[in-house]
Amino acid sequence: MNTTPELQLALDYVRLPSAIAMALRVQEYVDVIEIGTPLIKAAGIASVAAIREVCPHKRVLADMKTPDVGALEAAMAFDAGADIMTVIAGASIDTVREALAVARERSGKTVMVELTGVRDLDRIAPEWKTIGVTDLVFHREWDAEIHGKSWTDDLLREIRGLIEMGFNVTVTGGITPGIIPFFKSVPVTRFIAGRAIHATDDPVASARALREAIADVFGRP
Amino acid sequence: MNTTPELQLALDYVRLPSAIAMALRVQEYVDVIEIGTPLIKAAGIASVAAIREVCPHKRVLADMKTPDVGALEAAMAFDAGADIMTVIAGASIDTVREALAVARERSGKTVMVELTGVRDLDRIAPEWKTIGVTDLVFHREWDAEIHGKSWTDDLLREIRGLIEMGFNVTVTGGITPGIIPFFKSVPVTRFIAGRAIHATDDPVASARALREAIADVFGRP
Repeated sequence: MNTTPELQLALDYVRLPSAIAMALRVQEYVDVIEIGTPLIKAAGIASVAAIREVCPHKRVLADMKTPDVGALEAAMAFDAGADIMTVIAGASIDTVREALAVARERSGKTVMVELTGVRDLDRIAPEWKTIGVTDLVFHREWDAEIHGKSWTDDLLREIRGLIEMGFNVTVTGGITPGIIPFFKSVPVTRFIAGRAIHATDDPVASARALREAIADVFGRP
Repeated sequence: MNTTPELQLALDYVRLPSAIAMALRVQEYVDVIEIGTPLIKAAGIASVAAIREVCPHKRVLADMKTPDVGALEAAMAFDAGADIMTVIAGASIDTVREALAVARERSGKTVMVELTGVRDLDRIAPEWKTIGVTDLVFHREWDAEIHGKSWTDDLLREIRGLIEMGFNVTVTGGITPGIIPFFKSVPVTRFIAGRAIHATDDPVASARALREAIADVFGRP
């Protein structure tokens, strides 16, 4: 069993041409390419179709962070070519269920619950499990980050708890090569990096450095 | 003091041309025009600018339901011409604070917190109050609605509690002329109607019927 975590590039852009350019530049070095929520809102679902078109061999994730009308938004994302879409943790259980139902009707599609801002994880996670959620994005959010909140042992314990419940857990928020060893004790499924790749002088080198750091800590695929 | 609730049209579309056509058709009979979350995701922030362009004399609400990067998404909405934007209740308090800060830098802009899916209202509402949130959207969400959940006295009590805390409360989710009397005891700020206007044979007559129902219950403006 291969337990080396994958690497996901988050296209944290609000302009599609720049996002396309970055996707083309580093796609070879990542497993999944994510169209960020602000880019979807800025440029529309066409941004998902665009990345699908120029990166036909990569898995594409539409970070919809769907808050309601789960079936409608899941269909919108998958119709545009996304392999994976996200529902926000604060959405009602009915919304998550609706999105999951759409994924099940199709082949190879995944819904992830995105934990940005969640305040009742202990209570809601078992409900997600019951309705068939398999994948979570554990997100130390940006607005918390700029207010000085960093990765802590408490967050690590939460991640471990979710994995022990049987969820595949993807981790995001300030992921750099230097922070990867911090996650050594938790078998996460995937790391997401945005600025640590695309906001550097050499995005290809940065993506490769992240891959190396992951391999150093978790073993080679 | 005029306490007659306003009427907001929700453009629940995923195609911009149809949304523009409906906005033009009923704008005269509503106070605020809302670009729904799925339309923003489908057609991008250009959908907000488009409604702003064709309805220059109406207040425009971008239902961003922002889950993170509050400053970025608030600026995106206001730059596109929105007078009002929403942050999702599940967002971290930092995200709400960031969006509010952007609204305060500009003149006449409002951030509303959208309660879709919220599970800890009693705990979080006082926090919103502390950081200066003034306006809430009380939302009986669609995915709950199709699972048979309807307006109840419990929901009415929650709305009354929020108004007593000093919030302006807008109400949405299955609003029809027939349900307006149910809200007689709570001085809500605005009602939002989507399908009850645009999915009827005569949207203009439907919007007028809603206005009449509001005036019958709350008095004329």
